[in-house]
Amino acid sequence: MAYNSQNIFAKILRGEAPSFKVYEDEHTFVMMDIMPQTKGHLLILTKEEAETLLDLSVEGAQACVATAKKIAPALLEVTNADGFVMSQFNNEVAGQTVYHVHFHLVPRYAGQKVERHSAVKGNMDEIAELGRQIAAAIK
Amino acid sequence: MAYNSQNIFAKILRGEAPSFKVYEDEHTFVMMDIMPQTKGHLLILTKEEAETLLDLSVEGAQACVATAKKIAPALLEVTNADGFVMSQFNNEVAGQTVYHVHFHLVPRYAGQKVERHSAVKGNMDEIAELGRQIAAAIK
Repeated sequence: MAYNSQNIFAKILRGEAPSFKVYEDEHTFVMMDIMPQTKGHLLILTKEEAETLLDLSVEGAQACVATAKKIAPALLEVTNADGFVMSQFNNEVAGQTVYHVHFHLVPRYAGQKVERHSAVKGNMDEIAELGRQIAAAIK
Repeated sequence: MAYNSQNIFAKILRGEAPSFKVYEDEHTFVMMDIMPQTKGHLLILTKEEAETLLDLSVEGAQACVATAKKIAPALLEVTNADGFVMSQFNNEVAGQTVYHVHFHLVPRYAGQKVERHSAVKGNMDEIAELGRQIAAAIK
């Protein structure tokens, strides 16, 4: 498939759609997922126009995991999560909903359920506040 | 937690336990998962002594995704999968079963179910053969 520059993440990266931004550098952009599977669920977007991991450059993929390593400690500190999953979905059959490469960081909490992916819209005020706290905790 | 050098992946990396090896380079080691969630499920191990992504060096994490990008096309070519998930679990609450950093590549097939993680032992002959085919298809 050809990359569709009208996808929602492309619009967010161009500043044409709003997001709860947490972090940004030359190659990546981090924001809260507004349909969180758990409290603190966030997304790391590449700035490359790539649909899947196969289309992304090696450097682009490496930038995403470097950002994941930078953000994860702040995410765990703010949420007090007991662990987390990093995941990245390729194609619809694998759960991909937006065709712009992104990595999920999903905190996990003992005894707490995990919502289905892209299923339930979260509380926007709570998500915005979490995003601010995580941004402030990044070292 | 202190890294336990007697974990099964450490033993495999030292050649003290068997595995269905697919690929190896200076920083990573790839093998078939013997309890596959789907056909072709494989694991990318760091060669660093790191329990979770937080303990792993940035370079170690980047080596894992570079290897993922190298292996994924061969995995899809051999399995004819319709997509795949890349995931990495941190701590028991997130599904981590072996405390040595590893990334999962799990092919997905339209209309086919996904086994639970580390739940069902696969057919060893079939897994060995898939591993050989994937190794041969790496470019």
